[in-house]
Amino acid sequence: MMSFAYLNLNLPLKTALATSKASPTNFNYAIVLLFVEHLRDFGDVFVFPIDKNNGGPYGDFVSLHPTLKTADERTSAVGYVVERLGEEQIPGIRDELYPVTSSFGAPIFFSLERAAAPYFGIKAYGVHMNGYVEVDGQKHMWVGKRSDTKQTYPGMLDHLVAGGLPHGIDCQENLIKECEEEAGIPRSISVKAIPVGAISYMDIDGYRYKRDVEFCYDLKLPKSFLPKNEDGEVDSFKLIPVTQVAEVIRKTEFFKPNCSLVIIDFLFRHGYITPEYLGYLDLLRNLRIGDCS
Amino acid sequence: MMSFAYLNLNLPLKTALATSKASPTNFNYAIVLLFVEHLRDFGDVFVFPIDKNNGGPYGDFVSLHPTLKTADERTSAVGYVVERLGEEQIPGIRDELYPVTSSFGAPIFFSLERAAAPYFGIKAYGVHMNGYVEVDGQKHMWVGKRSDTKQTYPGMLDHLVAGGLPHGIDCQENLIKECEEEAGIPRSISVKAIPVGAISYMDIDGYRYKRDVEFCYDLKLPKSFLPKNEDGEVDSFKLIPVTQVAEVIRKTEFFKPNCSLVIIDFLFRHGYITPEYLGYLDLLRNLRIGDCS
Repeated sequence: MMSFAYLNLNLPLKTALATSKASPTNFNYAIVLLFVEHLRDFGDVFVFPIDKNNGGPYGDFVSLHPTLKTADERTSAVGYVVERLGEEQIPGIRDELYPVTSSFGAPIFFSLERAAAPYFGIKAYGVHMNGYVEVDGQKHMWVGKRSDTKQTYPGMLDHLVAGGLPHGIDCQENLIKECEEEAGIPRSISVKAIPVGAISYMDIDGYRYKRDVEFCYDLKLPKSFLPKNEDGEVDSFKLIPVTQVAEVIRKTEFFKPNCSLVIIDFLFRHGYITPEYLGYLDLLRNLRIGDCS
Repeated sequence: MMSFAYLNLNLPLKTALATSKASPTNFNYAIVLLFVEHLRDFGDVFVFPIDKNNGGPYGDFVSLHPTLKTADERTSAVGYVVERLGEEQIPGIRDELYPVTSSFGAPIFFSLERAAAPYFGIKAYGVHMNGYVEVDGQKHMWVGKRSDTKQTYPGMLDHLVAGGLPHGIDCQENLIKECEEEAGIPRSISVKAIPVGAISYMDIDGYRYKRDVEFCYDLKLPKSFLPKNEDGEVDSFKLIPVTQVAEVIRKTEFFKPNCSLVIIDFLFRHGYITPEYLGYLDLLRNLRIGDCS
């Protein structure tokens, strides 16, 4: 049974407590318990802690049923649950499968509908690209405004290109695909995007426990380039001096939060934040505190 | 007495144990205790744990004597101890004072001879600069070879420019000064160096417990530039393709270890290490695990 422990779904009963210093009456803890209640109808798919407060055979976690022996069996069984829960419980289902692993590149336990990942506390990976232009020695960043009808973060400011990393495609190929779809950047230009590191964050929002790792890229674009959204998810693009982008992040919450992290990383790497600023190391440390695994 | 707790010298009795999972018979632990013995002659400067194993009034740490009330008094008293211990116990004394703080930019408790900092487990800050040139679109890095007569790391490979951050000078000014002294780079060029972040590491070596934070810089140099060492501490300089520098770090221990960390950070930021490499996030995470405070 030891190996099965690795298949814990990590539904964050314990983590919600740990991260929010919550008691069982805490809001986050309570709503996680509420989501678990939705899963109790599927006793052939999940194993539950025997006692909500004291854990079960696999600790405080909801686990996959041991009869589900192969990745395909698990994918199919959990897929059935997600389908049954439907839009009401898991809005934004996209029929896009994410691999479930213990860390990036590790063996895949099963695959899961992208929109469902945060409901199960599953880590998700993505790519974010800073697209910039140099005009008279000053860097300007292309910023997108998300469509007002987009399900998530409608109307907020966004990167020129960003997207989740689906099953079976590597980071660079995924970035090239997203460059084409989201900004009309041809492969001849997007292959020049430079991988520059990664950031990670977690966010508990309603039933969703997001644990995301974003691979960061920089692409210096030709001055003549004009982005053109081809999937209808972006309202407009604007080229903004990086110093102004920094001010927007400092003073407002207009940017989609994970974009702010990736852009702050850009500001560090390109010398817009300098050691002479009070709190330089504090900000850098907090930027890197996430679990990049 | 609460405020005095902040003046603990952090002599790493406890930390040596924690980091090396040592027992009191462990080598590191034993030598730290040996260094403490050298301080026992100075009972008007230090307060010691009452019992070596069970801690004293200020926990397991050696503390400064509470009668030393001002920064100047502490600087003078500890300076006297360092002078008395001399080259035999603390080799490489340079008459260069380092500020002792709880974190970068925090109020200064006192100042301490640079060479003595690691003997007291005091954090030290420095600057490291990647000096590079682009030839036909390929980046090449200037690498120095340390003089064979240098006290520390003789003959090892080094950055074009690096140096400790003394009391009373900010990072950029210090870098400009080091650029001039170590590589003959005029201010007109060195002001263009870009701060790109920081790395940190710790190292227990004999009596020394190094806790260093290095502010990292990139400087793109003109192709025509030839470095010229002006302080006699560098044997020679060589311009090496970055891909070859990466191979040297991967396969040898020729580089001074902290340079390897700063260069690995460079390799990440400039896309020489890509997410497609197995272990990408592991290496990135380990690079950032140090205490940048």
